[in-house]
Amino acid sequence: MMNEKILKQGGLAINRFFNLDTHAYDDGALPRKTKELLGLVSSLVLRCDDCVTYHIIQCAEAGVSDPEFFEAFNVGLIVGGSIVVPHLRRAVEALEECRGLKR
Amino acid sequence: MMNEKILKQGGLAINRFFNLDTHAYDDGALPRKTKELLGLVSSLVLRCDDCVTYHIIQCAEAGVSDPEFFEAFNVGLIVGGSIVVPHLRRAVEALEECRGLKR
Amino acid sequence: MMNEKILKQGGLAINRFFNLDTHAYDDGALPRKTKELLGLVSSLVLRCDDCVTYHIIQCAEAGVSDPEFFEAFNVGLIVGGSIVVPHLRRAVEALEECRGLKR
Amino acid sequence: MMNEKILKQGGLAINRFFNLDTHAYDDGALPRKTKELLGLVSSLVLRCDDCVTYHIIQCAEAGVSDPEFFEAFNVGLIVGGSIVVPHLRRAVEALEECRGLKR
Amino acid sequence: MMNEKILKQGGLAINRFFNLDTHAYDDGALPRKTKELLGLVSSLVLRCDDCVTYHIIQCAEAGVSDPEFFEAFNVGLIVGGSIVVPHLRRAVEALEECRGLKR
Amino acid sequence: MMNEKILKQGGLAINRFFNLDTHAYDDGALPRKTKELLGLVSSLVLRCDDCVTYHIIQCAEAGVSDPEFFEAFNVGLIVGGSIVVPHLRRAVEALEECRGLKR
Repeated sequence: MMNEKILKQGGLAINRFFNLDTHAYDDGALPRKTKELLGLVSSLVLRCDDCVTYHIIQCAEAGVSDPEFFEAFNVGLIVGGSIVVPHLRRAVEALEECRGLKR
Repeated sequence: MMNEKILKQGGLAINRFFNLDTHAYDDGALPRKTKELLGLVSSLVLRCDDCVTYHIIQCAEAGVSDPEFFEAFNVGLIVGGSIVVPHLRRAVEALEECRGLKR
Repeated sequence: MMNEKILKQGGLAINRFFNLDTHAYDDGALPRKTKELLGLVSSLVLRCDDCVTYHIIQCAEAGVSDPEFFEAFNVGLIVGGSIVVPHLRRAVEALEECRGLKR
Repeated sequence: MMNEKILKQGGLAINRFFNLDTHAYDDGALPRKTKELLGLVSSLVLRCDDCVTYHIIQCAEAGVSDPEFFEAFNVGLIVGGSIVVPHLRRAVEALEECRGLKR
Repeated sequence: MMNEKILKQGGLAINRFFNLDTHAYDDGALPRKTKELLGLVSSLVLRCDDCVTYHIIQCAEAGVSDPEFFEAFNVGLIVGGSIVVPHLRRAVEALEECRGLKR
Repeated sequence: MMNEKILKQGGLAINRFFNLDTHAYDDGALPRKTKELLGLVSSLVLRCDDCVTYHIIQCAEAGVSDPEFFEAFNVGLIVGGSIVVPHLRRAVEALEECRGLKR
């Protein structure tokens, strides 16, 4: 919804960037699942909660299992350090919500 | 070699961190190849040339093909933006050197 | 208000930094409008929502038009990559609020 | 509480990282108080509010005085620049709350 | 030259990103000069020497004067803090070289 | 030397920032030694080699022992993650050079 506003006002250049962004995760030489994991761990080490949540949803749709998620989280934690911990906590919450386990 | 010095002087805590770091990329629920790609793209968006070079070598050993490398580079470029470009340039150089194509 | 507390307790050093910060955007060789745009795009690529909102207000006061804002946003998006997108979304919201268009 | 979930699901690797993280601030060649200040200023320049709040509480427990806090904040502000200001504002709020001065 | 290699191997997606990057600084609602300054200060606060040098050359071509450069540098220094200083030092060197003042 | 050029051309604002930067590490409520350690670990997690080297020299002058250095390095490694490793390696080299142990 807000993206619609950005797309409407943002002009051709911003729209083209959004288009590149969308297609960066398409199946190709690497499967979409791997690419979404790349997006997830990149977002984790750059510590952007909204991006992490977005890629968790995409990863879940692409069939990432819980053990796969936690191994990817571990790579993000080792690369990015303890500054990643609060974002990891929110990532685990987002995953639970995504799996429908949230009470 | 320098790592040896760090390990000798760094004490138990630093050694244990290095140990966790090494094993974060072992085969598990996700194959080593995927995990090395996670390390590569994380290093690219965090813009650490030495880390990028290290993971390129590991990825090549794990069987990552050139088209797979360039799709992973593209994810890093889209997530991290044009500030990544000089590091991407050096990544392509490192890949060429790794493939033995360097003249 | 919170700044007042910081200024009161922060002592001379922190007060002097705040003073330098305030005057960095004064008219000079470059007009204030350009400098506020520099502050805005810097804040966007460093992904600080509060700083982005602050500079949007300052830019609007300095006469930045909507097409100028969106071209500046585009530079921030290209330099900083898709990790900037959630902050861009909030920047567009802040601009709307600032323009009084928010419903 | 959320950490418990992470620890339960995160497996051995994530647990070991958390363990290293906890013990990095133990008394040693440097006293815990100094190490917590290192954690605080690192968190400030990396701009992680949750980490800043955590280390403020630890620092307060380790006996850091208000003048010491504000000198540490000043180092973080100088190293990290004005992008740190909103986090400094929240740090001062967290310190007040921690001291029980919050109204 | 290395960019040529990236463009040849990088495929359509990376080429399109490079194209967006090039045109983000074209004259528009904001003049090219202002946009190059935005690119310069963004690169300074993100601390990428190659990007800073590139934008210094572009800024000089777009007619940025020395006093304008130093006011832009000051904004970058205030926003980004003392961690920017080594990059500022190299920026001043690059500017000198660009002006042909280097001995 | 390059700083002299910056100071000469940079005008009052940049000079004042450099002055604040210098005095941020003076003895105060916290001793200079602690503050230099804060500068060191901040520089390590922000991954600026020149800043790390500078603070290692200052720390050595302020009497920081090798075990103290390595405990501070460990905090930086845990907070900042494996992306810090190449900078840690160069930090250990800088420390050796500073101690005159370099062969």
